[in-house]
Amino acid sequence: MELLKEKIRDTALLLDGGIVKVDMFLNHQLDTALLYEMGKEFRKLFPSDKITKILTAEASGIAIAAVAGLLFNVPVVFAKKGNPKNICKDAYTADVYSYTKQESKQIRVSKEYLSASDHVLILDDFLANGQAVKGLLEIVKQSGASLEGIGIAIEKGFQEGGKLIRDMGIRLESLAIIEEIKDGEIVFR
Amino acid sequence: MELLKEKIRDTALLLDGGIVKVDMFLNHQLDTALLYEMGKEFRKLFPSDKITKILTAEASGIAIAAVAGLLFNVPVVFAKKGNPKNICKDAYTADVYSYTKQESKQIRVSKEYLSASDHVLILDDFLANGQAVKGLLEIVKQSGASLEGIGIAIEKGFQEGGKLIRDMGIRLESLAIIEEIKDGEIVFR
Repeated sequence: MELLKEKIRDTALLLDGGIVKVDMFLNHQLDTALLYEMGKEFRKLFPSDKITKILTAEASGIAIAAVAGLLFNVPVVFAKKGNPKNICKDAYTADVYSYTKQESKQIRVSKEYLSASDHVLILDDFLANGQAVKGLLEIVKQSGASLEGIGIAIEKGFQEGGKLIRDMGIRLESLAIIEEIKDGEIVFR
Repeated sequence: MELLKEKIRDTALLLDGGIVKVDMFLNHQLDTALLYEMGKEFRKLFPSDKITKILTAEASGIAIAAVAGLLFNVPVVFAKKGNPKNICKDAYTADVYSYTKQESKQIRVSKEYLSASDHVLILDDFLANGQAVKGLLEIVKQSGASLEGIGIAIEKGFQEGGKLIRDMGIRLESLAIIEEIKDGEIVFR
């Protein structure tokens, strides 16, 4: 998606360890017009009318999923992190290791909001090593729902997540794939 | 807002300690069509063209703010919680005590995304004791931005947050105000 690539080129900060910081439009400030265009793009890539639910993870996937949910005309479910006292006990759970925060956290989705009759599209902001998506896949599996595919805003093609998921035979569509970071410049696939 | 009140009446779970759980459409699963109607309602309540930015807090305010941002045609900034290593150091900060989680957390907004030239509308999902909103107000104050008002989805009228903010002379609009919970039934103001 050219508009997204331009925005990444113009505003992303490149930090040590291959971290691509897109706080300017996606992870701290939200460019809502761009979110809308991204939602339209996901709808084009996944036109199936079978999709009943969009699944994402708290917190960084919520904005993308909420706006896409409008365009798909389906509810969004976001997996919650941690275990605060007023989260429902009857939940699908998975452990997700965050390399950024260097800790493992449980994500959970209440069984009320995902079931075997659902057709699920997973959306998320980033795909790097694939830990978050693997957690969401585990939750879909536990629910018995059908997976319609995975949509990602920004894939880091130089990390293993994309290959890992495509090798599982899952349809994965990323709006922008960063092939490498060379001499401080982003090269897209 | 009648549609929101109906949804609360039909789906909210009432827990001990005055907790109103709206996971069905707002805090775990998102009713995206309702979010859109709520965004339209906020736009009607705050029609000013001076608004340059919507400010909310991670994670529960993001969905409301993102969809409203589309309708206001402005960027959204969400305050981040905690202090992970890749959050910008140069930030406005405030401490917020959560009665639900029984802990105090710092919220922060990078100075890049809020400045004295901004006109800010604060949006959030819940107003109870007002701790989260007070934190956001502190951040707006530090930035020197002008506050255009505060929009809340669900205000708990039986807790002190609403009075506290209105007594400060701030324009506060809540789409649904729960006056009390009587014999297990919600009574709206």
